[in-house]
Amino acid sequence: MLLITMKKKAMVKQISAVIKYLENHSLTPHITRSNNSMLIGIVQDTDSLLIAELGDLPGVESVGVVKKAFKLASRDFKNDKTIVTVRGVEIGGDEIVVIAGPCAVESREQLLETAYRVRDGGARFLRGGAYKPRSSPYSFQGLGEKGLDLLAEAREKTNLGIVTEVVSPAQIDIVARTADILQVGARNMQNFALLDALGKMRKPVLLKRGMMSTIEELLMSAEYLLASGNDQVILCERGIRTFEKYTRNTLDFAIVPLVHRLSHLPIILDPSHAAGDRELVPPLAASALAAGADGLIIEVHIDPDNALCDGLQSLRAEEFSTLMHHFRKIARAMGRDIFEASDDLS
Amino acid sequence: MLLITMKKKAMVKQISAVIKYLENHSLTPHITRSNNSMLIGIVQDTDSLLIAELGDLPGVESVGVVKKAFKLASRDFKNDKTIVTVRGVEIGGDEIVVIAGPCAVESREQLLETAYRVRDGGARFLRGGAYKPRSSPYSFQGLGEKGLDLLAEAREKTNLGIVTEVVSPAQIDIVARTADILQVGARNMQNFALLDALGKMRKPVLLKRGMMSTIEELLMSAEYLLASGNDQVILCERGIRTFEKYTRNTLDFAIVPLVHRLSHLPIILDPSHAAGDRELVPPLAASALAAGADGLIIEVHIDPDNALCDGLQSLRAEEFSTLMHHFRKIARAMGRDIFEASDDLS
Amino acid sequence: MLLITMKKKAMVKQISAVIKYLENHSLTPHITRSNNSMLIGIVQDTDSLLIAELGDLPGVESVGVVKKAFKLASRDFKNDKTIVTVRGVEIGGDEIVVIAGPCAVESREQLLETAYRVRDGGARFLRGGAYKPRSSPYSFQGLGEKGLDLLAEAREKTNLGIVTEVVSPAQIDIVARTADILQVGARNMQNFALLDALGKMRKPVLLKRGMMSTIEELLMSAEYLLASGNDQVILCERGIRTFEKYTRNTLDFAIVPLVHRLSHLPIILDPSHAAGDRELVPPLAASALAAGADGLIIEVHIDPDNALCDGLQSLRAEEFSTLMHHFRKIARAMGRDIFEASDDLS
Amino acid sequence: MLLITMKKKAMVKQISAVIKYLENHSLTPHITRSNNSMLIGIVQDTDSLLIAELGDLPGVESVGVVKKAFKLASRDFKNDKTIVTVRGVEIGGDEIVVIAGPCAVESREQLLETAYRVRDGGARFLRGGAYKPRSSPYSFQGLGEKGLDLLAEAREKTNLGIVTEVVSPAQIDIVARTADILQVGARNMQNFALLDALGKMRKPVLLKRGMMSTIEELLMSAEYLLASGNDQVILCERGIRTFEKYTRNTLDFAIVPLVHRLSHLPIILDPSHAAGDRELVPPLAASALAAGADGLIIEVHIDPDNALCDGLQSLRAEEFSTLMHHFRKIARAMGRDIFEASDDLS
Repeated sequence: MLLITMKKKAMVKQISAVIKYLENHSLTPHITRSNNSMLIGIVQDTDSLLIAELGDLPGVESVGVVKKAFKLASRDFKNDKTIVTVRGVEIGGDEIVVIAGPCAVESREQLLETAYRVRDGGARFLRGGAYKPRSSPYSFQGLGEKGLDLLAEAREKTNLGIVTEVVSPAQIDIVARTADILQVGARNMQNFALLDALGKMRKPVLLKRGMMSTIEELLMSAEYLLASGNDQVILCERGIRTFEKYTRNTLDFAIVPLVHRLSHLPIILDPSHAAGDRELVPPLAASALAAGADGLIIEVHIDPDNALCDGLQSLRAEEFSTLMHHFRKIARAMGRDIFEASDDLS
Repeated sequence: MLLITMKKKAMVKQISAVIKYLENHSLTPHITRSNNSMLIGIVQDTDSLLIAELGDLPGVESVGVVKKAFKLASRDFKNDKTIVTVRGVEIGGDEIVVIAGPCAVESREQLLETAYRVRDGGARFLRGGAYKPRSSPYSFQGLGEKGLDLLAEAREKTNLGIVTEVVSPAQIDIVARTADILQVGARNMQNFALLDALGKMRKPVLLKRGMMSTIEELLMSAEYLLASGNDQVILCERGIRTFEKYTRNTLDFAIVPLVHRLSHLPIILDPSHAAGDRELVPPLAASALAAGADGLIIEVHIDPDNALCDGLQSLRAEEFSTLMHHFRKIARAMGRDIFEASDDLS
Repeated sequence: MLLITMKKKAMVKQISAVIKYLENHSLTPHITRSNNSMLIGIVQDTDSLLIAELGDLPGVESVGVVKKAFKLASRDFKNDKTIVTVRGVEIGGDEIVVIAGPCAVESREQLLETAYRVRDGGARFLRGGAYKPRSSPYSFQGLGEKGLDLLAEAREKTNLGIVTEVVSPAQIDIVARTADILQVGARNMQNFALLDALGKMRKPVLLKRGMMSTIEELLMSAEYLLASGNDQVILCERGIRTFEKYTRNTLDFAIVPLVHRLSHLPIILDPSHAAGDRELVPPLAASALAAGADGLIIEVHIDPDNALCDGLQSLRAEEFSTLMHHFRKIARAMGRDIFEASDDLS
Repeated sequence: MLLITMKKKAMVKQISAVIKYLENHSLTPHITRSNNSMLIGIVQDTDSLLIAELGDLPGVESVGVVKKAFKLASRDFKNDKTIVTVRGVEIGGDEIVVIAGPCAVESREQLLETAYRVRDGGARFLRGGAYKPRSSPYSFQGLGEKGLDLLAEAREKTNLGIVTEVVSPAQIDIVARTADILQVGARNMQNFALLDALGKMRKPVLLKRGMMSTIEELLMSAEYLLASGNDQVILCERGIRTFEKYTRNTLDFAIVPLVHRLSHLPIILDPSHAAGDRELVPPLAASALAAGADGLIIEVHIDPDNALCDGLQSLRAEEFSTLMHHFRKIARAMGRDIFEASDDLS
């Protein structure tokens, strides 16, 4: 990637001239700001002649080359942390944002009751799958459109934002009509046709790490979204596959400081899927906070024993508020905070 | 799965009556033959009353329940090995079928020259990617439709069948117009929207094991294809991710006897992607034959040093024929054979 | 394992009679207390006749069988958490105990200066290898006996307890003369000859999880120590081998709640070896506290850039106190605490 | 490592002078031959002055530096393959050598009957554990010295060489009295105290790869043996730990061509432990031959259903000869051979 840093005092018309120059050469400028400077990134191939010419344009401070596999996702391109603002809630800021809800939308009662509970506990977003990618074709595949309607109703009643999964390009339109954040599941992290299509949307994307993908590959999948023009990307760790058998997957907590070092994108953790065991969720969620995660995504169900999927790992709705008190204490010890619903809400 | 075994002497009208009974109950019959008996599988949920009624229908020998995660893909449903016949070549029979060609279609000259070479060496199919799923959005993504046209031309000139990858449901139609076998790449093994769409086609599918997927998950992805109605499925091992660093991935040879025990589907091996190193391909390919694989898929390039992808692991075209002689010896020691191009062809 | 629970009001002479009965049958009693009851465990094979006879002895409440792979290490045998008390410091109690120091003892100055620094920061124990197991025979193998002498001097000067590694049965005597806690390294977790010999000692053992070992295997290695008679065992997680490349190993935080559920033994975490990168140590250490770990083991060096081993992952001595302030806040949010050195000490 | 290549026509007294020069500088010469030249390796640290002086000594052709982590084990030090000759049988030569026998020595009858059977099938060595490293302290730990006596008797009766495991330095003397080849098990691959002690012996060592050790680490453990003076080292792959669940471990066949490229040491494969399943052993053993392995180690038992360890993966003694016929065919297709017992032996 070519990285053009403009002088702090560069005039608007100088900036425009650089952009026009790039467009005349069929190059797409990706623009960001860092430390009061304007930065312009070019991910297409360029030659050294062009680099020299760019360096000579008025208002240009320097022209550099970024060698990393991920470019627009890197700290080199954008040093300030990206904050994804959804319905007034900032993801990637000081607040640690909690997304909670059932694995799958199963029924109106199940979804609404869970939604009220997690809202009262301090969650900001409701999660729930309407389309479920399942290893077996015979497992429950989600309620589909009916599930999306129930999510929309839950948002209306609780004011929680909606996070739900999209599993194919053809579905994006219908899911995006309801979802505030579109989730790409672990199995689709390298479904590049899906990433390309989501990159052309203007809604935030929650990108889950594949269970056997490296952190670098996750950042390269994020790069697909950014390169297509969507910079509202939230990364999510949900555990990687290892030889250990007591847990379903192993949460890789080092991803938190590593993403914060390498990239400007926010990173949240999903302890429920990794653990596959309700009792392990609270300590792992607390660990995520202490590692510096920007948020949590937690499965909560009103009746986990009868859940249609992932019941064993879902917290009981009545435990949620108590746990959030505990999480809030750790967040504060970290100098951050977790939202607390005021009494008149509940 | 419910498995209805008809009596060996069941009359056609008895069989028809059973199928009609199922359809009246909105159940889809999957039909196969084993040891001169007709077997009918039902993958939908059923109740015990229906099982009892089915057992009483004339011509029904027995009604059993298959508990495995994969059902239509299992030996329980179909004991005889599936043979996928493409352009007169049987995959899954006694012949060990070799698919060879470049990672990606790069140019007319590169493709045609490689095609002639691998045909002369004894390959039955030409591989070559027109659409390439790549970890980075900035890597070469394939020639697209132009690549498909070149593959069609190569088939016309060499009479080799064409194996090429499809990466999204929207692409299936155009790829299927050229491909004789549609490949699902490792990263898409759990792209269920793609599998569903391919299951509705009537062309053979080469399903690669995800580098992060268990053998059971591979068989469950095959089940998606079979449950949607496509029983022309060829499985392919291309290496799994481990901690070992000298190779890109570790080929799991135990998959060959395991698939032959658990399933009726043919299994072939791709040593090139696993090794990531040209010199390792011949011994790994030979091992695949000795393990009992039904075929090989091998990357071959006329100029590996200048390949646009995977050059390090591609065999040089001029080495191919010599290696095929070696492979043929091992195939024969196994009581099988590899095709040998007659002299008048080359 | 046979587990004999004595009545709460069992008299001493009844207990003695049971023990005598066992010894007459060549069975070794392992004795513990739980909820005011005396429990006697027998790990040798027994027959049903003996079980019946034991059940009839006066004072015996019940006789049960424990089927787990680990028995004396399990919560079934001992429900109350084991507290290992070393030089007045309790490991496994409310205090979170910090062990700090260099990877290897390199010189008198390096060791003493580090020792003073970590003591002032609140560490309770000094770590430092005198015998270093190294992958290469040509790497620095430690100062040996001279290193032990320096550790003894550091203890005398700082009053910190000493944790150091033992790598073979023949070394145990000499290491035990200096060490307060003998460490078994990850590569020796299944060196059963070493475990057997350490089981016969009366000094605490810090048993590190092998980078290739499951949690169950760790508990079974602990069982070797317990079965040989040494119940002063501290478990330690130092990361497992995965495919991720940005870190040396992946810390498996789920081990903390899992060990607390399955076993009575304390569990501490070593973020330094897992990370292999100094900057990752503080967030991973904080995560360990939030997960509920009973302690931390952290590498600290006065001059990491010139360390003879593991310099990249060692904290600088001058950063240590600041970090301990941060850790203390999280410990307190968890309702626990970390020792704070009083001013007159420093 | 410093590598001194002597001139092809170097005189004995010139060679002696070089060795004397090295010894005067407290350096240990490791001597080998390659392409009619004498090579002298020095693994200790040296300075550039000494390198210059060495280059000036009469008869010295060149002085080079080997940077690999493993030095004496590398092809740089010794280009010709090492052949380990034991009781007249060459391991690492053209013959593929088969070692067979039970996991553990259990009884006189079991061992002798198995020994006769595997000898008749064409095995050259009898394997059998007298000391068994087991994950659980309560599992069968082997017959110890009595087991060694039975192995000695089996050798006397069948003329097979004996391969048996040694688990601690203290045991080496007693095991070496019986064993023709001392085996280091996977769990002890990085037991450096054991490797050091074995390096000082003059008996061949079979070094098994740890189940989560890289190929480079295996070669570095071999380097411990070579650096201590024992160059009779046979490497053995027995499977690595992965996420796949149908098999116990995944055999990494790429190790065969990689070891042959990187090192001069022979490499054999153990399909029994990796598979953990009798039916998978024949195809995996055949694959090992096709990959170019120098030998096989196979578990065979007269009554696997009642074996004290690893019964599920042991071949039945009566199947062994039939399988060996199959293996022999593949060996011959590879241009190698497997020993065939003459009729008058059986």
